[in-house]
Amino acid sequence: MYFASDNCGPVHPKVLESLTSANAGYSPAYGDDRLTREVTERVREVFDAPDAAVHLVTTGSAANTLLLASLTAPWQTVFCSRVAHIHEDECNAPEFFTGGAKLTLVETENGQMTQDGLAAAIAAEETRGVHGPQRGPVSLTQATEKGTVHDLETLRGLTAIARAHGLPVHMDGARFANALATLGCQPAEMSWKAGVDALSFGGTKNGLMGVEAAILFDGERLWEFELRRKRGAHLMSKHRFLAAQMLAYLDSGLWLELASAANAACRRLADGLRSAPGANLMYRPDANILFARLPRATHRRLFAAGAEYHLWDAALDGGPEDEPLAARFVTDWSARDADTDRFLDLL
Amino acid sequence: MYFASDNCGPVHPKVLESLTSANAGYSPAYGDDRLTREVTERVREVFDAPDAAVHLVTTGSAANTLLLASLTAPWQTVFCSRVAHIHEDECNAPEFFTGGAKLTLVETENGQMTQDGLAAAIAAEETRGVHGPQRGPVSLTQATEKGTVHDLETLRGLTAIARAHGLPVHMDGARFANALATLGCQPAEMSWKAGVDALSFGGTKNGLMGVEAAILFDGERLWEFELRRKRGAHLMSKHRFLAAQMLAYLDSGLWLELASAANAACRRLADGLRSAPGANLMYRPDANILFARLPRATHRRLFAAGAEYHLWDAALDGGPEDEPLAARFVTDWSARDADTDRFLDLL
Amino acid sequence: MYFASDNCGPVHPKVLESLTSANAGYSPAYGDDRLTREVTERVREVFDAPDAAVHLVTTGSAANTLLLASLTAPWQTVFCSRVAHIHEDECNAPEFFTGGAKLTLVETENGQMTQDGLAAAIAAEETRGVHGPQRGPVSLTQATEKGTVHDLETLRGLTAIARAHGLPVHMDGARFANALATLGCQPAEMSWKAGVDALSFGGTKNGLMGVEAAILFDGERLWEFELRRKRGAHLMSKHRFLAAQMLAYLDSGLWLELASAANAACRRLADGLRSAPGANLMYRPDANILFARLPRATHRRLFAAGAEYHLWDAALDGGPEDEPLAARFVTDWSARDADTDRFLDLL
Amino acid sequence: MYFASDNCGPVHPKVLESLTSANAGYSPAYGDDRLTREVTERVREVFDAPDAAVHLVTTGSAANTLLLASLTAPWQTVFCSRVAHIHEDECNAPEFFTGGAKLTLVETENGQMTQDGLAAAIAAEETRGVHGPQRGPVSLTQATEKGTVHDLETLRGLTAIARAHGLPVHMDGARFANALATLGCQPAEMSWKAGVDALSFGGTKNGLMGVEAAILFDGERLWEFELRRKRGAHLMSKHRFLAAQMLAYLDSGLWLELASAANAACRRLADGLRSAPGANLMYRPDANILFARLPRATHRRLFAAGAEYHLWDAALDGGPEDEPLAARFVTDWSARDADTDRFLDLL
Repeated sequence: MYFASDNCGPVHPKVLESLTSANAGYSPAYGDDRLTREVTERVREVFDAPDAAVHLVTTGSAANTLLLASLTAPWQTVFCSRVAHIHEDECNAPEFFTGGAKLTLVETENGQMTQDGLAAAIAAEETRGVHGPQRGPVSLTQATEKGTVHDLETLRGLTAIARAHGLPVHMDGARFANALATLGCQPAEMSWKAGVDALSFGGTKNGLMGVEAAILFDGERLWEFELRRKRGAHLMSKHRFLAAQMLAYLDSGLWLELASAANAACRRLADGLRSAPGANLMYRPDANILFARLPRATHRRLFAAGAEYHLWDAALDGGPEDEPLAARFVTDWSARDADTDRFLDLL
Repeated sequence: MYFASDNCGPVHPKVLESLTSANAGYSPAYGDDRLTREVTERVREVFDAPDAAVHLVTTGSAANTLLLASLTAPWQTVFCSRVAHIHEDECNAPEFFTGGAKLTLVETENGQMTQDGLAAAIAAEETRGVHGPQRGPVSLTQATEKGTVHDLETLRGLTAIARAHGLPVHMDGARFANALATLGCQPAEMSWKAGVDALSFGGTKNGLMGVEAAILFDGERLWEFELRRKRGAHLMSKHRFLAAQMLAYLDSGLWLELASAANAACRRLADGLRSAPGANLMYRPDANILFARLPRATHRRLFAAGAEYHLWDAALDGGPEDEPLAARFVTDWSARDADTDRFLDLL
Repeated sequence: MYFASDNCGPVHPKVLESLTSANAGYSPAYGDDRLTREVTERVREVFDAPDAAVHLVTTGSAANTLLLASLTAPWQTVFCSRVAHIHEDECNAPEFFTGGAKLTLVETENGQMTQDGLAAAIAAEETRGVHGPQRGPVSLTQATEKGTVHDLETLRGLTAIARAHGLPVHMDGARFANALATLGCQPAEMSWKAGVDALSFGGTKNGLMGVEAAILFDGERLWEFELRRKRGAHLMSKHRFLAAQMLAYLDSGLWLELASAANAACRRLADGLRSAPGANLMYRPDANILFARLPRATHRRLFAAGAEYHLWDAALDGGPEDEPLAARFVTDWSARDADTDRFLDLL
Repeated sequence: MYFASDNCGPVHPKVLESLTSANAGYSPAYGDDRLTREVTERVREVFDAPDAAVHLVTTGSAANTLLLASLTAPWQTVFCSRVAHIHEDECNAPEFFTGGAKLTLVETENGQMTQDGLAAAIAAEETRGVHGPQRGPVSLTQATEKGTVHDLETLRGLTAIARAHGLPVHMDGARFANALATLGCQPAEMSWKAGVDALSFGGTKNGLMGVEAAILFDGERLWEFELRRKRGAHLMSKHRFLAAQMLAYLDSGLWLELASAANAACRRLADGLRSAPGANLMYRPDANILFARLPRATHRRLFAAGAEYHLWDAALDGGPEDEPLAARFVTDWSARDADTDRFLDLL
């Protein structure tokens, strides 16, 4: 009954196998190896993007902040949702890597910037000439931190607003696979064809040990990105072990298989919660994250029985037992139906 | 009929005289001169703060950002109002000088952070451990960008919230003199006795050529501040000419005299506007700034007659003639009643 | 015949086994897991440093730059050798993470700062008051980039100079294990007992997949370091996989066993080269790196036969065949005597 | 007998007059005033550079660092002399404003980079791919910190080396006027026609109160520069008072008249020193700075008689009376022959 985070689950066995295979003998360091070249080719194929610059890093924050730094001048502001990981969970890393750019928080519903909110936020900047921050990229998250998934039309609506102002678009795709499994479309449709210039393509939350791909669909700034990565101390020397993970991930659609499993576990949980007394889903659980309100007493009982998940902006102690408290539940590829069912039985 | 900004008026003649007096012969550079030492002594006296570290710079943004940098770690966030100059009008200078700290915008009414808003904003940070930005200083503006002045109780209420969380307090006092003239209290009461640790003490908007004092009431970090100022390229070599301005400013209460004149001009304008048809004051014009809504046709007539001031988030063209449009009016020490009256007559 | 770099060799099987063992079930993320706590305990034991702050990162540059940033104010300068990795091979990462500190290059012999050079470099700073960079930490490398190892007396001599000026000491120990195997002393003796405050304790070049421990012997700034690591996007989510590597490394002295093997391979190579016609060792090959000059024709023959290593500040083409060209040879734990012997036979 | 620095002298009366003239009535702030536009026109005329971007700032460090930041990526290194002001006297401001670029010190003779030294320094960078710092601009100082002036051929020789590597060239011209007075050539010849892309054109050391012009001869990055200046808190609000100074400076060749006076005073001093017993000039005193060695006893006598100048890397106490100690003497436009002669008499 572990729903604390998709960062907490195991690595898929095929990934470990791939690491073991990659371990034979010597291989050039710093990404100059055969496996890394294969990753670039594979990612380009998967995204139907033959010119994309593809770089591997070990954390989602590294992918996000290095990509944002590539798109943002220090005197600009990044437009993002109020619950964006880059704002709430990266300890000012985007500000650090961009050299001090600002983040402008846009009106957010269900974890997604609203189109009106984005348009208004962009309109409000650059009305002060040299004095105010200048407009920078729009950064959106797919799937969002609230577990919703932008449909393609919504995505395109948001990126169109960015385009209309000449602003580039970044997508935090730490859970790109989960969103793609939900929409059932092609990777290109949910990225560059939808107006995304730079994608943090997550792997770690979906069965890898620690690899994310930073993708610039226009490969022109490839060398600059490499310098930024090195200067950020994010260029791994034994790079083949990042590549080996990503290759296993992309091989035979493992990435989508794992994401689908995680999503299915979330749906099972959602279905159970919908019929549970006193439980209220807070957002549409489109992918592998679910927010729900449950009475305090219920949380207490679940925790006592060994369930692991996070209360959200709420404390277990200090209020009436029937007060509904928000909580976040995250499923990963390794979730077992038996555990979910046991959890639902406890409800 | 010039109400565009208090940055646009002339320098007071006594300031020019002081510059001329300071110009005799040789004098050590970089602040190691007699006049600069006198400034420190005078500021300490005026603020009843014998240990304060006092440094002169040439812009308000320099004072604000160097002081904030002294109080803020790069992984922290500064709490400020939504209309704070440091947020809206410094082109990310605070982010730059702090090494990438964040600014958290607090619920704002009449240009002032609300106490509930501040408490909520502080409470919302540091709930995410190492992942989120950490709590940093509270920065408030006195008089505010909307022309209101915090009374002492309000000031102390806000700083008490900061204190309760162990957070330092910065005051952007670009119009400190105007606010002080309004409250009629002692400088110490409106600064360190009210819980302010660091003050940007403005002079430029109030008759100087270009001098602001950055004051740290606890002088312990004096040397660090000097290094920050030098590293920011803000240490003037012929420093005596900054000192000469500030000495003239503080001499015989010139600073308060000038601020009182500016405030009086603003009151005259406000009184006239209150009785003008179709005019609506938007905030309490406590100091030398006034926001008012006037019908588009009225603006058109005023501009045509040579009045100079800024429409605020509004455009002169493109709407009905009777639509009320917001505008900002700022008075300075050199405002003449005749001009104001002419302006009011035009209304 | 692979002597290109110790970044190119395989991971030790026990490390892979440890990764596999760590992969069972769920485990808290971001270092809040059991294995990470064990790492801290083990490192403290190994270094006889019960208060040390121990943090794992995935690159040596991350360990170096995060530690240096903890020790260095942006207006200071770091004293290091002319061939220091932090100067030559980190693409300005130390400047980036410190917020713009400077590196002062000290007179260097055999890859080591000379005591006179260090004393002179320190003496030359802070003679210009606020104008010049201020003195910051001394950073030394053990084993050095030239393959030499500071003996304990030399180490203590250098750190004593730092101490005398109140400056902290950082040690880039990417090859700490190799140096320790050479000196045969205790880890504490070659680190904090020798005056080192902060140590980048390398694992990647010595059989790990990608883990370095950043150690602050005085644990007081532990929390600041964690914030710096997170803000640098260097906090791994599935942190147990870093911990698992480091535990395997420290278990039963594997780390020293591997370093000894690498050193032995280097000695075997050195012995062979010493008796080879036309070969000249350039520095004392104390650890697992060896610089030698060989005639151009010899290099050509070796490369043709499949040997892999780097010419150093030299180009294979464009000069007389008997011209001696410098080259660097690095051995790792997996070096096989048969390969070395084949290489020597080719000579 | 004041030879301590050209930062210590008075402002020329015409400059004060110009400030007074500029003080009438209201004028737009932040450089949007008539006088500032005139400055741009005048500087373009003086430099025969109709497209140049011209911006005023209040310190030489601001001009240097903002221009360098415009030319340098954070992962690059700036090539400069060992005695460059940007290296020795700006407390890491260049590192700060460039976002952490490095400074590479080039072999220096008489305060000037040697051509061989520059070529070698450039050649030594970018041999390490993504690992090392990348090549950035060449920054040279005219007149140099040692008082020498590059002749045009030397200038062109150095910039040609930069050009050959595609590197831009910055000139720290804090004493541009003094150098120009020495060479007697056109401003264009000593700047863009000699291969200089960006010039810090000093005024403060030559009779102004505190104004330097940052000139980018190719005006394409004008807007970026304005953003950098604002973000550096270096955009003065009452900008007309900077413009007024620069206009007075350029009017009727005042700037060259003042520089010639300073140079003449230096020559008078040099001539006297050449014939003084025990005095040795250390560099060719081409402009208004002179380094000389004098016996300790002589220094003692001069200081006792009220002479003001700086010993250089030397201490008055603690050695034999006949030991020659280096000292720096700087003359400014206001130097009086009588003082110089009194000083020489004392010798």
